[in-house]
Amino acid sequence: MNRSGMVIVLSGFSGAGKGTIMKHLLSDYPGKYHLSVSATTRGKRQGEEDGREYFFKTKEEFEDMIRNHELLEYASFNQNYYGTPKAYVDRLLSEGKDVILEIEVQGALQIKKIFPQALLLFVTPPDGATLKERLEGRGTEEAEVVLQRLAIASRESLLMEQYDYIIVNDDLDRAVHSVHHLIQAEHERAMRNTDFINKIQNELSVFSKGENE
Amino acid sequence: MNRSGMVIVLSGFSGAGKGTIMKHLLSDYPGKYHLSVSATTRGKRQGEEDGREYFFKTKEEFEDMIRNHELLEYASFNQNYYGTPKAYVDRLLSEGKDVILEIEVQGALQIKKIFPQALLLFVTPPDGATLKERLEGRGTEEAEVVLQRLAIASRESLLMEQYDYIIVNDDLDRAVHSVHHLIQAEHERAMRNTDFINKIQNELSVFSKGENE
Repeated sequence: MNRSGMVIVLSGFSGAGKGTIMKHLLSDYPGKYHLSVSATTRGKRQGEEDGREYFFKTKEEFEDMIRNHELLEYASFNQNYYGTPKAYVDRLLSEGKDVILEIEVQGALQIKKIFPQALLLFVTPPDGATLKERLEGRGTEEAEVVLQRLAIASRESLLMEQYDYIIVNDDLDRAVHSVHHLIQAEHERAMRNTDFINKIQNELSVFSKGENE
Repeated sequence: MNRSGMVIVLSGFSGAGKGTIMKHLLSDYPGKYHLSVSATTRGKRQGEEDGREYFFKTKEEFEDMIRNHELLEYASFNQNYYGTPKAYVDRLLSEGKDVILEIEVQGALQIKKIFPQALLLFVTPPDGATLKERLEGRGTEEAEVVLQRLAIASRESLLMEQYDYIIVNDDLDRAVHSVHHLIQAEHERAMRNTDFINKIQNELSVFSKGENE
């Protein structure tokens, strides 16, 4: 069977818990999944390491990467660039690894255009009220910021149909295992295994000839 | 999330072990899956029960079912009819149950036309040589019969691409769990959860309006 690497995009509402799912996925299934490391122009914070949290770039370097088409997608937040370096993802894929990109909805749809076989997962709480509670429950955000995030969530929700799977994060353990199993199942998709199908068709074709003798 | 019933079609080469996978699936996950019972005109054998192994019908009754469109698919083998009664499958689906149909390739593609959201699984050994060995290994078949089955397998292999998933039965336990997990994953497909998506879009839309005030 085909165990060539797969691009997996994990998106979802702010507050849906995709970061936590990701963390558990990497620790519960060590070596199975590889996190794409983004490039950014924002400053390195205490404890961060170049190539681990981010690839830290100057504005000039980042804009060179844009010009040279070295990014799969990029966006700008708070006057800083964030993007997904193509070379890093390509290398992991060529090693047969499943690469997970944690990116927001617009970026996710850009990725789908570049890798039509990318698997798009959308993480959501079970309902809108729960999302509101979770955002308020963080306690660190002002009411205004919570409302802004809910407005963004509302816009993002209109693109959920373009995802392959919807992950309802009502129970963290269940959600993590569900993500793992659906990625594994995806490797068995017929459309991802045309080489295998062609091989067995060839092997069996000798008996088909025998039939016509 | 959508837990409405799903039609699952299990096909595969004769000798690939789909019957064994089915048996283990039903016993390893009790109550999770429901086997569609076929109608047939062949005589009831010792130990068989009407409605368990088959719905036993006379030729006239079966042909009435054909005329009245009461069968999802049917075929004739050794001068006996075999078919899938629509009413029985519909009842299981309306109860939210996942219904598994174990049918051959032509029938499977008929089912896909009636239920476009049916999940089509194809069971295969890892290669052609293994299939030949397994068919010979049964020891009960003459060489001629084995060759006929391989010729049929060769023809069937040309339709594998039309299936959703390819299940390589190289390890029974792995194959059984893999079938279970991919059916469960399939329930989380975005296209099977448009009701859920619409609900959360609605719930969040109030915050979107707030944004425009």
